[in-house]
Amino acid sequence: MQARQTLADIQHLLTTVLKAPARWQGLAPFADTDGDLAAQVLDEAAKFVDSAIAPLQRSGDEEGCRFDAGRVHTPAGFRDAYQAFWQAGWPSLSCAPDDGGQGLPAVLECVLFEWLAGANHGWTMAPGLLHGAYECIKHHASDELKAQYLEKVATGEWLATMCLTEAHAGSDLGMVRTRGVPQPDGSARVNGSKIFISGGEHDLTDNIVHLVLARLPDAPAGPKGLSLFLVPKVLPDASRNAVVCERIEEKMGLHGSPTCVMRFDDATGWLVGEPNKGLNAMFVMMNAARLHVGLQGIGLLEAAWQKASAYAAERRQMRAPGAKDTSLIQDHPAIRRILHTQRAWIDGGRVLAYHTALQLDVAKHSADAGERAAAQRWCALVTPVLKAALTDQAFHGASACLQVFGGHGYVREWGIEQIVRDARVAMIYEGTNEIQAIDLLVRKVLADGGQGLATLLTTLPGAAPSAAASARRHALVEITQTLAIAAQSDPELPYWVADDYLRAVALVLLEWAWAQIGAARPHRAEQSTAATDRWTTPTQAFAQWVLPEFDLRTAILRQRIAQAFEFRPQEAVSA
Amino acid sequence: MQARQTLADIQHLLTTVLKAPARWQGLAPFADTDGDLAAQVLDEAAKFVDSAIAPLQRSGDEEGCRFDAGRVHTPAGFRDAYQAFWQAGWPSLSCAPDDGGQGLPAVLECVLFEWLAGANHGWTMAPGLLHGAYECIKHHASDELKAQYLEKVATGEWLATMCLTEAHAGSDLGMVRTRGVPQPDGSARVNGSKIFISGGEHDLTDNIVHLVLARLPDAPAGPKGLSLFLVPKVLPDASRNAVVCERIEEKMGLHGSPTCVMRFDDATGWLVGEPNKGLNAMFVMMNAARLHVGLQGIGLLEAAWQKASAYAAERRQMRAPGAKDTSLIQDHPAIRRILHTQRAWIDGGRVLAYHTALQLDVAKHSADAGERAAAQRWCALVTPVLKAALTDQAFHGASACLQVFGGHGYVREWGIEQIVRDARVAMIYEGTNEIQAIDLLVRKVLADGGQGLATLLTTLPGAAPSAAASARRHALVEITQTLAIAAQSDPELPYWVADDYLRAVALVLLEWAWAQIGAARPHRAEQSTAATDRWTTPTQAFAQWVLPEFDLRTAILRQRIAQAFEFRPQEAVSA
Repeated sequence: MQARQTLADIQHLLTTVLKAPARWQGLAPFADTDGDLAAQVLDEAAKFVDSAIAPLQRSGDEEGCRFDAGRVHTPAGFRDAYQAFWQAGWPSLSCAPDDGGQGLPAVLECVLFEWLAGANHGWTMAPGLLHGAYECIKHHASDELKAQYLEKVATGEWLATMCLTEAHAGSDLGMVRTRGVPQPDGSARVNGSKIFISGGEHDLTDNIVHLVLARLPDAPAGPKGLSLFLVPKVLPDASRNAVVCERIEEKMGLHGSPTCVMRFDDATGWLVGEPNKGLNAMFVMMNAARLHVGLQGIGLLEAAWQKASAYAAERRQMRAPGAKDTSLIQDHPAIRRILHTQRAWIDGGRVLAYHTALQLDVAKHSADAGERAAAQRWCALVTPVLKAALTDQAFHGASACLQVFGGHGYVREWGIEQIVRDARVAMIYEGTNEIQAIDLLVRKVLADGGQGLATLLTTLPGAAPSAAASARRHALVEITQTLAIAAQSDPELPYWVADDYLRAVALVLLEWAWAQIGAARPHRAEQSTAATDRWTTPTQAFAQWVLPEFDLRTAILRQRIAQAFEFRPQEAVSA
Repeated sequence: MQARQTLADIQHLLTTVLKAPARWQGLAPFADTDGDLAAQVLDEAAKFVDSAIAPLQRSGDEEGCRFDAGRVHTPAGFRDAYQAFWQAGWPSLSCAPDDGGQGLPAVLECVLFEWLAGANHGWTMAPGLLHGAYECIKHHASDELKAQYLEKVATGEWLATMCLTEAHAGSDLGMVRTRGVPQPDGSARVNGSKIFISGGEHDLTDNIVHLVLARLPDAPAGPKGLSLFLVPKVLPDASRNAVVCERIEEKMGLHGSPTCVMRFDDATGWLVGEPNKGLNAMFVMMNAARLHVGLQGIGLLEAAWQKASAYAAERRQMRAPGAKDTSLIQDHPAIRRILHTQRAWIDGGRVLAYHTALQLDVAKHSADAGERAAAQRWCALVTPVLKAALTDQAFHGASACLQVFGGHGYVREWGIEQIVRDARVAMIYEGTNEIQAIDLLVRKVLADGGQGLATLLTTLPGAAPSAAASARRHALVEITQTLAIAAQSDPELPYWVADDYLRAVALVLLEWAWAQIGAARPHRAEQSTAATDRWTTPTQAFAQWVLPEFDLRTAILRQRIAQAFEFRPQEAVSA
């Protein structure tokens, strides 16, 4: 993927559509960050991504990571690229200046990570959890720990991991068995095994800071007995801690990122935050982390789209309808439909993701409590939708782009099959997409009887919606209310239809996003046809090929809700 | 995949649902093949697949094929398995007894190849084109060629390839440049390069019979100037022919099958069939070949389902709604929905594919010309639908099954990611799924103004459809008529919506298939709950999660058709 190829689009979305600079400049920490400065930062970021990271995409996949007696060797060039990355200050873009960061709005970091994932998903896993670890240490660690680790993690001089999953405890962290036993000196002895630890061991940095979920002695069972420990690879006295990488996984893709099995053998660690409140300390960064995974989806889909549209502009096969001679395949309707549909997702997805990133900063920094609460509501409700819908589209859309290549798509040479393989993981990690859907519907929407979602839908910013859009929003609110009633008598119901519900929400949000793009679109008279078509074609594709799924999802929801009432008439009536 | 695990299901579908033995026994060549004999054949086939082929699935993927100076080494065990396969007579199951075959109905061979693909897609590529080559030689080659090659290919002692694609000629065979120049001795000198030749070179058999599309000197341009040549790897005088494998492709999956770049350097070949009628000679076997790819889809999806349902029956995570303790993940509605949905596709897909296989034999062997024509119509219309819809579901359904494993699905260990990678190719080869959709809508349905499809839909066998099913069939007929009119003024229209059209047809056919299963279902009183649930659960899943897509597809079709009328009011009215 070439980041530069997306720069004008993204500037248009940020500046003209979302008016992002004005919005972040209303927040105290970013008052001085004007649009020009942001544009310069993005310009430099695009150059860095294109020159230092993108060129390692294919070699990173083919060479992969190598495990050798506890050591992990990343593919050639990965360490140099990472060293250049942190020394140029990229990891600390949105960290506080006091911590060694540059204090820029989160949305700029989001664009950077969208590009990085599109350019080289495997490499990008290394710094992917860094900002979350930074927030976690900043808000929960003791002053002594902060003095040792905060700046190193903020700047990215040291990389960080999240050690959550165990072999028997994947989606269900309540089953975690790793133990941390406090020592007289204030440290703790950590023992246990963790799996699926991205970057658990590598040669990119001199130290690695592990944030490990474990149980204190006598902690209650389940998720409320989990504490968080900071366990460095190299201890402050420069000796090696008892943290061992046992092996790395062979995976479908993402070969540039070592997925490690880690063993903690009486390793030295320190408690972060309060005892038994480990999940709280990790969940503080969950919205940001899930948004980042959604952005990976956008980056990967853009990468797939760039490859497919370049191929379609060069390859000739068959005559398109009405053509006299063999046509470029970009002139065949089946190919155009695939390409336009992906643009509908990418562009609309960008508006939603960038708007959400702005809301993350509003939730933190606005002087107005009502504004903070509204932003918090947006982030809580929209983040799982973006995580699931955008990673789903990354995989399925990249597969559609692979189809553009015909048989050539299936061979390594063109690089499109790598994107499909790499993208698949984003539907799983940071909470599977099924869990995102349950998080949205059960834990968030139904938890307040649908009030929060109804408020969000009726206060979407921008001009009044079209009659059709308004009808869809109302349908969603009405379905939510019926679902809430039916779920009282059929507790399984929301778990059966959570995916449909999430998709319906995603489509209504995308419709809003495209309305924002439409409102900011230059009139045909004022602009070249190419500039107008750039946004008109995917608008039409969205209406024609993407949005109709809304009626499918609501039909499935209504049918299953009706069934819940039908099977339990007594309870439903009493509810 | 374990074939034995499917044996009872398939017997039920063939015998009770489709009453297949009675139907093939009405055809002269199969009058003596009773249900017991068929059951024995399938029983033996399942044993062979499970014991000889399935165990090489993972090693075949990991070891892959190795290219070494023109030679191709298949993974360990592949040659022995293939030698056992042909010596046991499996390739010749449905070849004529006169040619060394066993003269059994095509549907039995279809079940065998469904199993083989599910057990080991890579290995199965080797004999995958054998039956097509047999038919091609049988019906088009000269007696001298037949004497040399027919029995060897019928029995599978020698394997065969189809050499169609060239670097610049993929979907568009009219652009083929390879040349065949007749020689005084009746042979031809063949020169050119072919790509994507599955099994172009290997160590499974002592000879390989290539069927090569090429142009005679002064042949007309385009597809009507293509002739077919038989070019063996080893010539009748035991010398090596000038056929060279230049390299094998690195692919997303299917590592057990060598995908070869082949060069013909003054190779010796012989014309098969008439000059410039090469495509006819190949297309004679296209319905059977495409049906086989659809069956691969079923086999791969069954393989994914078996893995996911076994995992879901062992893995415990989180409490299912209403449960007191951590539940097996098979009790979580999101997991059940994934598994039930795949069964809805597999079982319904089997009914359609086996029915189609029966129609292939009816079209060939029925004494009644009207019956032959009706069967031919079924095969022509339904085959592209099955090829596209079942391979699409194989990939997307296998990906859904991968999701059941959470993070474990992404690592090699569990084998599910291999199925996703392997399955992806079936959406591309034997005509991409986009080309299947155009074949269905443009070349077949619209070619006769929708008459054939309407006849097929109104004469579907079995009891009268439900009111809802009848309405869907009528909707499809009505849309077809409107589409035919609109296409006269908007020639691009069918090419934009061919995919939606194919999906709508697929869903109506699946609904018919599930009605057949339902009609043959034992009543609850007569059978154990498990036996009833075996078919009831996926019936409900089909109605609840799969069939609603019909309204989505028809909505998209109607919207796009209306747009065609809107943009060209004059022409539409005059049409």
